[in-house]
Amino acid sequence: MQQIIDFILELDKLKGVTRKTRPLGLERYENSAEHSWQIAMLAASLAPYAGSTIDINRVIRMLLVHDIGEIDTGDTLVYAEGDWKERKAAELAAVKRIFGLLPEQQGAAFLALWQEFETGETPEARFAHAVDRAMPVLLNLANSGQSWRENGVSHERVVRRIAPPIKDGCPALWAYLEGRLEEALQKGWFGA
Amino acid sequence: MQQIIDFILELDKLKGVTRKTRPLGLERYENSAEHSWQIAMLAASLAPYAGSTIDINRVIRMLLVHDIGEIDTGDTLVYAEGDWKERKAAELAAVKRIFGLLPEQQGAAFLALWQEFETGETPEARFAHAVDRAMPVLLNLANSGQSWRENGVSHERVVRRIAPPIKDGCPALWAYLEGRLEEALQKGWFGA
Repeated sequence: MQQIIDFILELDKLKGVTRKTRPLGLERYENSAEHSWQIAMLAASLAPYAGSTIDINRVIRMLLVHDIGEIDTGDTLVYAEGDWKERKAAELAAVKRIFGLLPEQQGAAFLALWQEFETGETPEARFAHAVDRAMPVLLNLANSGQSWRENGVSHERVVRRIAPPIKDGCPALWAYLEGRLEEALQKGWFGA
Repeated sequence: MQQIIDFILELDKLKGVTRKTRPLGLERYENSAEHSWQIAMLAASLAPYAGSTIDINRVIRMLLVHDIGEIDTGDTLVYAEGDWKERKAAELAAVKRIFGLLPEQQGAAFLALWQEFETGETPEARFAHAVDRAMPVLLNLANSGQSWRENGVSHERVVRRIAPPIKDGCPALWAYLEGRLEEALQKGWFGA
């Protein structure tokens, strides 16, 4: 029992990892814990639109754990072009440390979910990626492009980064977003 | 699709509903969105200790939706003795409004989960209650009784409020907490 308690208190740190988007109507930045909750809800709501038949429960569990490595590494803007491979190695080390706090069986199950998300090959992982990529876009579309403008991110860069995973994992969501992103471009909501 | 987007943006407001506990090491109060994520993780970790055989996936989905009514009503300290019935009626009206933003089938599924949690009769709901009640206690035990001291909450009141649901839904967790709460009393971490 103490191992589980130590783990859940370690997870508390994800509430202090800030992202680049701001919750609607709030001045502060969003943190990765509340983001994880919101994408789990988005996945549950969007399940009928998944590109393939999926186990939505595994998607939800995957999304709940997918950002936990940021406890050690912090969040990086998805449009950043830096050394992605190095960053992913650091996140793997982080989740091994954190899931290692748990009894072996629970830790291994969470690590397998995290790795399934990262590998991105199963229908569940591909749907989860689509949902994860879409959420900050939906917030930006409701917030006059806040994080795009603040970080100098262009329409072209957003589309290049998010169109392939969203088309792949949730085609109907991409069909919706494509037109909304075009409108946002007309409105000057991008940063470059 | 637009209904789902409207729903998920409405949910963004839960990030602005503050609770009485503070995340460890942070000055600000915790919000109900990040709390919902953390208890879903606690449930997944504690599943082997549930009092009965449970469908952990339904527990997780229940915990993800159980606080959504607070978007309209705000959070109330679990130890408050006020008009619980009136508060619950307000929360029901709130979730009907919010889940009503969704296509009928998704909205009805979320409402059923919310009601299952509130009714608290299934093994899944009872385990979910135990987890939900335990989380602020675990944070307080790691934070020198922060919300108990700030709100004048006594050891006796905490035990009266949380012992029955936790014993019922996750007996091993109560066995652990009972001694920890006794230690906290010796250390003067309660407010009354």
